[in-house]
Amino acid sequence: MRVRSINLVVSFIGVGLLLSGCQRPPATKTLSEVHSDPLPSWNDGQTKRAITDFVERVTKEGSSDFVPVEDRIATFDNDGTLWVEQPVYTEASFTNDRVEQLAAQHPDWKKKQPYAAVLNHDMKALAAGGQKEVAQLLIVTHTGMTTEDFDKIVSDWIQHAKHPRFKKPFTQCIYQPMVEVLAYLRQNGFKTYIVSGGEQEFMRPWTEKAYGIPREQVIGTQFKTELKDGALMRLGQLDSIDDGPGKPVNIGRFIGKRPIAAFGNSDGDQQMLEYTTAGSGARLAVLVHHTDAQREYSYDRDSKIGTLNKALDEAQQKHWVVIDMKSDWKEIFPSPLNGEVPRQ
Amino acid sequence: MRVRSINLVVSFIGVGLLLSGCQRPPATKTLSEVHSDPLPSWNDGQTKRAITDFVERVTKEGSSDFVPVEDRIATFDNDGTLWVEQPVYTEASFTNDRVEQLAAQHPDWKKKQPYAAVLNHDMKALAAGGQKEVAQLLIVTHTGMTTEDFDKIVSDWIQHAKHPRFKKPFTQCIYQPMVEVLAYLRQNGFKTYIVSGGEQEFMRPWTEKAYGIPREQVIGTQFKTELKDGALMRLGQLDSIDDGPGKPVNIGRFIGKRPIAAFGNSDGDQQMLEYTTAGSGARLAVLVHHTDAQREYSYDRDSKIGTLNKALDEAQQKHWVVIDMKSDWKEIFPSPLNGEVPRQ
Repeated sequence: MRVRSINLVVSFIGVGLLLSGCQRPPATKTLSEVHSDPLPSWNDGQTKRAITDFVERVTKEGSSDFVPVEDRIATFDNDGTLWVEQPVYTEASFTNDRVEQLAAQHPDWKKKQPYAAVLNHDMKALAAGGQKEVAQLLIVTHTGMTTEDFDKIVSDWIQHAKHPRFKKPFTQCIYQPMVEVLAYLRQNGFKTYIVSGGEQEFMRPWTEKAYGIPREQVIGTQFKTELKDGALMRLGQLDSIDDGPGKPVNIGRFIGKRPIAAFGNSDGDQQMLEYTTAGSGARLAVLVHHTDAQREYSYDRDSKIGTLNKALDEAQQKHWVVIDMKSDWKEIFPSPLNGEVPRQ
Repeated sequence: MRVRSINLVVSFIGVGLLLSGCQRPPATKTLSEVHSDPLPSWNDGQTKRAITDFVERVTKEGSSDFVPVEDRIATFDNDGTLWVEQPVYTEASFTNDRVEQLAAQHPDWKKKQPYAAVLNHDMKALAAGGQKEVAQLLIVTHTGMTTEDFDKIVSDWIQHAKHPRFKKPFTQCIYQPMVEVLAYLRQNGFKTYIVSGGEQEFMRPWTEKAYGIPREQVIGTQFKTELKDGALMRLGQLDSIDDGPGKPVNIGRFIGKRPIAAFGNSDGDQQMLEYTTAGSGARLAVLVHHTDAQREYSYDRDSKIGTLNKALDEAQQKHWVVIDMKSDWKEIFPSPLNGEVPRQ
């Protein structure tokens, strides 16, 4: 709970600092352009080439780097890798909104911490509360209902909530170049998974539509559940924290295969990239480096959200691929004219 | 651990009672016979028809029972549902053989329980040891190595070990009619999963070849792991017991969708079948009833392995499909001439 809790506190603090930003309208591609280049939102250069070279090598039959289809596993972090995580994690916005929504049934929350801090936007009081109180916020907003009811709560929220800066639904604040990588990998026989520190059931309702990744390929931090009256009740007890070393552990548990490609953006992804590259044969480890304050955000070593420090050092030592968002990506977000992502 | 531990004790006891049985040589099908009937090893009748009717209803576009491809989830117990579980669970045979193999490095085991009991085939002493000592046997034989090393240990064992009665590799002691159901469901857009009380990593090395079910669709009882030097070390601590109510919990966690079809054979599958049928729309719940002492085994309410008692009552009340192995199945095991199962 540690890393996420601290981040969550910071996330709430961040809410107070929002600035409305500008966004460049993305160019629309013709069909023929899309078909001739699997990664049209990427500028040509060594980053793009590192990805396409890898895919060509592992899919070329007879090549020494060839990998059979069943072993073409690629794992992706979500926050900051597939969608925006600044100025606060999307899940923190959800938590915040849900406290406000539930407050009507809990008149005592107006004077009870940590709820009062959220309701009064009192970030100082919230930060003073520490991890335990923040964990309490997560439990109150995420558990105590069936998995099916939570699914409806998240589905409803994500349909209406908007990113504070980009003024668009969060599922449109996903990175178009990464959506293209997901589709490109799947076209080449890869099975694509999300392996995120975010709560698993917070992601499952919308990943298929946003990324073409079905529910069963979404791995995240998990609350315990128990069977009750034919449904699964979500309990206020964490079962698995899918962050740092927890990512390889959950990859082993859920997939049972070592990925050959992994994509992340923060120190929480370091062990997943290490685990991926520790296997034999061709391997691809990629970090999204947020370098574009104008079109998105610019942050790394000193950021409280999505800290990229140790993993950046390791990437430089081990020649992992580091995406320079500003120079590598032509577009950041999907054009409203883009259709749905092809299914796996 | 309770159910499995007790069963394991019984399994070891069972080793002493083995009788060499007779097996009817399975008939060989011509290609055209196989193609015209997706379930050629099933006798025509209401059991077979219940399965094919269900599949036809959920796959017929425009039908009120139509289920989109992404929700066609079918879950299968393994021991006693997909392969033989008598006279002892295959995993108990593995545990037994591995204690004997490891004994060379542990001279003290000759006089130390529970190892001595296994080495001396002293079932009375083993049973006297209780759950804790049996759990110790599982931990010693299943953990303390990386997941990749355990994979090699199981792969090697399963290639050489033979069923005591049928004198064939265990992966040939699988039920041909169920292999046909798996393939038939996949041909109709279903994703097929194993959800077994057996240890997850004990199954993953061979399920693809035996059943066409890839590693990532195998859910079982799990030991904890930790990341160490780029590999996952298997720890001597259970993480999840995939039996009884643990089956729906793990289905929720791993798949995140309620199955529309579930197949089991014992009381340990009861909650999985209840969870499956508690959903709305067309549902299929099937129990394999072992009624064929001549060709396989005959057991239900009083058996220590694969007890089928409460679930059989519920099946009768709720009109679940109950397979009468003796009258419903033309053949029990695959013909040696059958090729590999088509992949998902």
